Amino acid sequence: MDAIEVIRAKRDGGELTTAQIDWVIDAYTRGDVADEQMSALAMAILLNGMNRREIADWTQAMIRSGERMDWSALDRPTADKHSTGGVGDKITLPLAPLVAACGAYVPQLSGRGLGHTGGTLDKLESIPGWRASLSTDEMLNVLRSAGAVVCAAGTGLAPADKKLYALRDVTGTVESIPLIASSIMSKKIAEGTGSLVLDVKVGSGAFMKTTETARELAETMVALGTDAGVRTVALMTAMDRPLGRAVGHALEVEESVEVLAGGGPADVVELTVRLAREMLEAAGISGKDPAKALADGSAMDVWRRMVSAQGGDPDALLPRAAETMTVEVPSSGVLTRLDAYAVGLAAWRLGAGRARKEDPVSFGAGVTLHAKPGDLVRAGQPLMTLHADETARFERALEALEGGYAVGVASEEQLPLVIDRITAP
Amino acid sequence: MDAIEVIRAKRDGGELTTAQIDWVIDAYTRGDVADEQMSALAMAILLNGMNRREIADWTQAMIRSGERMDWSALDRPTADKHSTGGVGDKITLPLAPLVAACGAYVPQLSGRGLGHTGGTLDKLESIPGWRASLSTDEMLNVLRSAGAVVCAAGTGLAPADKKLYALRDVTGTVESIPLIASSIMSKKIAEGTGSLVLDVKVGSGAFMKTTETARELAETMVALGTDAGVRTVALMTAMDRPLGRAVGHALEVEESVEVLAGGGPADVVELTVRLAREMLEAAGISGKDPAKALADGSAMDVWRRMVSAQGGDPDALLPRAAETMTVEVPSSGVLTRLDAYAVGLAAWRLGAGRARKEDPVSFGAGVTLHAKPGDLVRAGQPLMTLHADETARFERALEALEGGYAVGVASEEQLPLVIDRITAP
Repeated sequence: MDAIEVIRAKRDGGELTTAQIDWVIDAYTRGDVADEQMSALAMAILLNGMNRREIADWTQAMIRSGERMDWSALDRPTADKHSTGGVGDKITLPLAPLVAACGAYVPQLSGRGLGHTGGTLDKLESIPGWRASLSTDEMLNVLRSAGAVVCAAGTGLAPADKKLYALRDVTGTVESIPLIASSIMSKKIAEGTGSLVLDVKVGSGAFMKTTETARELAETMVALGTDAGVRTVALMTAMDRPLGRAVGHALEVEESVEVLAGGGPADVVELTVRLAREMLEAAGISGKDPAKALADGSAMDVWRRMVSAQGGDPDALLPRAAETMTVEVPSSGVLTRLDAYAVGLAAWRLGAGRARKEDPVSFGAGVTLHAKPGDLVRAGQPLMTLHADETARFERALEALEGGYAVGVASEEQLPLVIDRITAP
Repeated sequence: MDAIEVIRAKRDGGELTTAQIDWVIDAYTRGDVADEQMSALAMAILLNGMNRREIADWTQAMIRSGERMDWSALDRPTADKHSTGGVGDKITLPLAPLVAACGAYVPQLSGRGLGHTGGTLDKLESIPGWRASLSTDEMLNVLRSAGAVVCAAGTGLAPADKKLYALRDVTGTVESIPLIASSIMSKKIAEGTGSLVLDVKVGSGAFMKTTETARELAETMVALGTDAGVRTVALMTAMDRPLGRAVGHALEVEESVEVLAGGGPADVVELTVRLAREMLEAAGISGKDPAKALADGSAMDVWRRMVSAQGGDPDALLPRAAETMTVEVPSSGVLTRLDAYAVGLAAWRLGAGRARKEDPVSFGAGVTLHAKPGDLVRAGQPLMTLHADETARFERALEALEGGYAVGVASEEQLPLVIDRITAP
């Protein structure tokens, strides 16, 4: 078999055989298929697609390129959640301890942020002392002692995906649903979770801008998980406006702790509880009420144990940005729009985001929202607070926000928080 | 500007701007755009196409990546021919001296063979002493003394094309008419010829298998040449059967010398004379009869001067393969088919071709045809003679010929030798 034969088959609109997919992923991982060959294949896949069998084979081949974790030694079911990423999406932080408090083990491998959406690991690293890198034994110890663990994926998990993802990032071949779905699901299946709830974000601040593409991605991932024996369900949720009131690393940890303390913004609480119910159902755990576990402090107990077990101090003061600036409401009325992408880009420019993988982030930087779409606002009241380490950053953040919010007489049409629920057919 | 922006524009079906094309070709030549980015772009171009303006810009950018030759110091018009390649296509060898004998200068930069079609330089190198590599000054001297020169393109001519061609070869992105047309035309325009006749081959032994794709390529190249100020015309000619009776390096030189001596196979003579008339017309030279220049020995005189001026001995004995094998006519009747690709592949396996650019060729290897489609043949008479340096090569050559010829009661439909003539609209 050779790379040109495989590239031509897909280029000419054909279906790749299982043998071709197994060979090309393995040969690429070993370096026998060159980057320039894989990027041509990725472009052909992006433009000509892959069917369900091809995507499943592609995913399995990426899983086989590395190790596969196994939690069968644990005495309770495992459940995990994956979000496709959004602005202010800190849901993993309250959710993982909440689901653990309700009786499932939550072994979550997370990533870092790139572009305008923040990464869960970056947020947790704003807690002094907290460590993202754990060995498998350490993960098992944290799971046993706390019930939940959120850490970085080791290099041994789906190395083909790591290599391919880096390549797609520089070759304009990221936006392919078969490649996105297989990238996410290869890592989640290799992670060894028994059940998985996917949070597929839709809107300006999400990777998927339309309900149609989000639905296609959700259906593809649910099919992949189900075919691999993982009980998988997906929610399509709103990302036309930011989630919650805090966007930024330490700011989002603070908001998460509010939720774990029984408070916090309504949308964050609602989505956290809804996702927790889905995870518990998928894990086969019944008779537990996540709302109660937030109210009675049991989720907070897990959070504190989880943070401590990974070296963090749950009582430590979190980093604060040195400078703040208030953006005022321009006129009185209803806040009709607050665009997720504009706020995400502003937070990114304030120092919360990174342009390249190796860039550091500012833990204190970000945006605090004082109103959400639909709220009545008065001219001159604070609409947002911008946080940055240097005042020089405010100007470009303000530019990002231009046209990103509007005050009028009635709120524009918004997506419902949970748009749809996708299960295996 | 960055590579991902350009890739995405073409990936999403857009038109690349002149600035984007100029930037990406220049940055690729300098190494600022990586191979894996260019191959993704090439695949997007292959699948989504380029319009006439984009192809012209792409070609001009490749020309600007290197030097451009200039023959304005010469006192006569320049004319060149380019063939897309076929089996037994030795036409350049008699044609270049013939056109020079009729009053034009013929400065032809040629290539080597790869795959089942032979390269003009490989054929000429079967003449003892003949050198393919000349400096621009040497080219000018040969042109002035002989009127025609056939030599290798220097590395300074369209270096972007050289780099891109090598990349396309390993990434399944060769078969794109915009990329094929711009590759050929960037070299021909940079070569500085005032007029150009394209011989676009059609059929099993050609790169273009159908009249439709050949016509699209011909029209694209004629438009490119015309837009660049080169008087350009194309003939679409038959390559369903081999051209002439000799396939192989030295064997084709011998047949070319026969044509220059006023003999040779009818199809080679007809196509040589037809192409010469087209070149003279494009160069604005009238009142010269190429058929006469073959008959009166003036073309042969140019050939001898041209070979000598490049170090070759026109009277030297040419290399012969050590072994021969005769393939007999299987039954009496009409030779209904003699497939160009089968014969080309047989010659390649006999040692005339190379699998990789760095492989040597056997100058004496090849196939001599004793009958052509339409000829009456008798069972047992010689149909072809195979020539190779080792008898071990005959078996796989015979396998290539299986099903490649047939004897019946009436000839199958053949393409006319000249199928169509394409001029600028």
